[in-house]
Amino acid sequence: MYLSDLGINAEHRGNTGEDVFDPDLFRKSAEIVISKLEKYLAESSIRGLEQSNPYVLLEAAKDLMTEEYQSIPAFNPEKLEAIIDLYIKTGIQVYSPGYMGRQFSGVIPLAGLIDLLSSIVNQPSSFYEAGPLPNVVERIMASELNQFIGWDPESFAMVTTSGATLGNLTALLAARNHTFPHIWSEGISALEGQYRPAIAVSEDAHYSINRAVGIIGIGENQIVRLPINQERQICIEKVRPTLEAAEKRGLKVFCLVASAGTTSVGAFDQLDQLAEITQEKNIWLHVDGAHGGSLLVADKLRHKLKGIDQADSFVWDAHKMMFLPGVCTLLFYKNKEKSYGAFHQQASYVFEKVPNIYTQFDSAEQNFECTKRPLIMNLWVLWALYGKALFANKIEYLCDLTQQAYQILTAKPDFQVLHKPEANILCFRYLPSNLVEKDFPDFQVAIRNRITEKGKFFISKVDINSTGSLRVVFMNHEINSDHIQMLISEITKTGQELLNQL
Amino acid sequence: MYLSDLGINAEHRGNTGEDVFDPDLFRKSAEIVISKLEKYLAESSIRGLEQSNPYVLLEAAKDLMTEEYQSIPAFNPEKLEAIIDLYIKTGIQVYSPGYMGRQFSGVIPLAGLIDLLSSIVNQPSSFYEAGPLPNVVERIMASELNQFIGWDPESFAMVTTSGATLGNLTALLAARNHTFPHIWSEGISALEGQYRPAIAVSEDAHYSINRAVGIIGIGENQIVRLPINQERQICIEKVRPTLEAAEKRGLKVFCLVASAGTTSVGAFDQLDQLAEITQEKNIWLHVDGAHGGSLLVADKLRHKLKGIDQADSFVWDAHKMMFLPGVCTLLFYKNKEKSYGAFHQQASYVFEKVPNIYTQFDSAEQNFECTKRPLIMNLWVLWALYGKALFANKIEYLCDLTQQAYQILTAKPDFQVLHKPEANILCFRYLPSNLVEKDFPDFQVAIRNRITEKGKFFISKVDINSTGSLRVVFMNHEINSDHIQMLISEITKTGQELLNQL
Repeated sequence: MYLSDLGINAEHRGNTGEDVFDPDLFRKSAEIVISKLEKYLAESSIRGLEQSNPYVLLEAAKDLMTEEYQSIPAFNPEKLEAIIDLYIKTGIQVYSPGYMGRQFSGVIPLAGLIDLLSSIVNQPSSFYEAGPLPNVVERIMASELNQFIGWDPESFAMVTTSGATLGNLTALLAARNHTFPHIWSEGISALEGQYRPAIAVSEDAHYSINRAVGIIGIGENQIVRLPINQERQICIEKVRPTLEAAEKRGLKVFCLVASAGTTSVGAFDQLDQLAEITQEKNIWLHVDGAHGGSLLVADKLRHKLKGIDQADSFVWDAHKMMFLPGVCTLLFYKNKEKSYGAFHQQASYVFEKVPNIYTQFDSAEQNFECTKRPLIMNLWVLWALYGKALFANKIEYLCDLTQQAYQILTAKPDFQVLHKPEANILCFRYLPSNLVEKDFPDFQVAIRNRITEKGKFFISKVDINSTGSLRVVFMNHEINSDHIQMLISEITKTGQELLNQL
Repeated sequence: MYLSDLGINAEHRGNTGEDVFDPDLFRKSAEIVISKLEKYLAESSIRGLEQSNPYVLLEAAKDLMTEEYQSIPAFNPEKLEAIIDLYIKTGIQVYSPGYMGRQFSGVIPLAGLIDLLSSIVNQPSSFYEAGPLPNVVERIMASELNQFIGWDPESFAMVTTSGATLGNLTALLAARNHTFPHIWSEGISALEGQYRPAIAVSEDAHYSINRAVGIIGIGENQIVRLPINQERQICIEKVRPTLEAAEKRGLKVFCLVASAGTTSVGAFDQLDQLAEITQEKNIWLHVDGAHGGSLLVADKLRHKLKGIDQADSFVWDAHKMMFLPGVCTLLFYKNKEKSYGAFHQQASYVFEKVPNIYTQFDSAEQNFECTKRPLIMNLWVLWALYGKALFANKIEYLCDLTQQAYQILTAKPDFQVLHKPEANILCFRYLPSNLVEKDFPDFQVAIRNRITEKGKFFISKVDINSTGSLRVVFMNHEINSDHIQMLISEITKTGQELLNQL
């Protein structure tokens, strides 16, 4: 219809472009995608990542592109199949037991279908008007999850946002603007001659916190590093002296960031004890629970977050240990009013001057995004159909499996385990007696890289106390202790190969 | 498998939780979702939004939730169907010709299927290792789209990010850190006693710019407002004097934000003329092309962005006029080096100390997100299969349709058209002779609200020169001039009803 309206010459059309909106074509292409994914999900071999040379992959991708520029070619099912094959083949095999590497998972497949649904119904959900159901179920999920936190149901708040980096930034802004209400309008320059705003974080905090501090104009030099203990938690005894020393340097610490599940080892800070200090000193307590927040739904593990009800704000990624596709970040505030402090502005085409029953459900003033995907839907649909046990059972299994791995590795004299696991992350080093570390300083990293190349297992690496280490993250319930033994054999064999090549 | 490992009593299980990963269940639930969507896409009636009372909707959603907490209930296909029905029914009907209201669209359905694919293969794409194909095709799309911009292929950069609000923030950070390299580490306090950093923006800029200024610590009061002309573009003649007056007030303007398609009316600033000024004054020129960037792919419309090659950075939302699901934002830099200036940090578990052929393709240092959806895939797959004509033809049709609407409305004495449309947005007022404006100051808003309630059309409202106005955004090629006539009748009828009720 519309091409003819434009008077475009029919002879030059491959098709009119309307076809791409045709329900039959949708069905046809859906069948292709679903069949490919069904086969992919059924594949049970042990495999990690088949590494692709990016320049070769670039050419492969280019070869799949049409050269037609003036008219629209007809749908080419073979090309779509080839694209899907390439996409699946070149990625980390997240559903395989060989994948033990990162904090994302083989997702619960139904969540992918809900993503499809969300993409087609297209309901950007910062505003109730555009996303009625997503905004309503956000309230429902807030209540459901607050059962495990324990805040006053009338006065807490939860919003979804696009990733924990953004969640952490938003919370830090709320904290900054709460303590220094003039900064939003007048800028940090308004504090001239008084003091420098500062944030206290664990030495082991995620890079997104540093990034946020740089972004909000405080400056990375105003990060007060809290020393950590053997368990890689913030060392409680050193918090007060560190904060007091910062104060003497002219810094005003307005926020302390604790972790509930650090990225490197999965350590949980002692929130209740930190809260005692922050309350005493009138400092905002923010908890980055991107990884470990999900432990709240598991009866056996909830205690790791003891004191979470004392936090002022709390970030939790449902796209990590709730096994959803990226991204679905939940940002909680103990005090709802403060959630409105992160951003201040008005724009007539979106914000209503007088709230009504609809706009009461808007989240645009609390979340950063203007166009926000209905992120909550994946979580809510699964929660609605299956309840919390679906998540809790899997989380408990994975944490239990990590304990098993810890026991297996501690019993092996050639391995050094770097911490007692609190969640589903474990860091260790392979230190065989024939290794002379000064001859091979990057031994652990070399093992990790070689194992990746071999393609059977995918694990990660991390610096612990400035030393390279191996790291496993168990996100897949298909993994059992046999796979752990297989991984250990692979590491041992690979390490010896590397030493023999020296 | 894993529940039994935990010794959970078989009698208390509804199912083991493994089922949710079962390929057969995936197929079964996919069939439900696909069938519902197929029917939805086939529905051709004229309809806007069936407004739902949020409290009623809340109860309806709660009724669909399992009450089982300890064990996992079996998959309930009826419940899934009911959820899908509720989700579809309560949203804005974006594929219907009755939808003329906002900048999101009925998306190209195949993009939804690619979203499903991306959710299942789960390749967070800030790092090549986790998302090889997405990172490679990001480079391909960068080159494809740069053909329409015209930068040196060797020295420009493009990254995807999650929404234009984030894209604008990132560009403003790159500009801030370029001009004031010490701010990242030392904070804005480091400028004490010198000057205040400031940003110049159009009076009609999107609220995300104000938000960004508040976030990065500069302060909203340091926004220098550039007056606009009759066409609601930045008034070129007033730029120099405004900047010079700001300088005299002790402000250092380091960035000027222009719009390529304002949100309110779709106006395009005169980029070439602005660039002349910013180059002369050594100011970073950022172009917010969230809405209008897509016009670059249309031969007939590209000229609206004349001068875009002179910009330092440029944001373009493919989830607006490229008809993709939210979100897919493209952030361009003329100078690749500067794209690395937005953020500075390191974290051993992610960033490589020594770049290799893989890490050269990482985008984590350029984009805000740590976990980033493979946003580019939706765009690339469509581009690969159909080429640019798919987008260009539709964009040209929509802009042409808006010209038609303009002509129709200007010919009607009861309507006041507020601008000559440059893209697919048109703002106007219904001002019948029997209206006494002081008796009914919110007349336009009342019309808009009543039309929404009626459910046949969905349009939006906007303040133009502090006066409420009606606004249509044409995102749907199913709309033709007949629908425009129908909307005008609806407005006239509704307006008269409201006046009769006075």
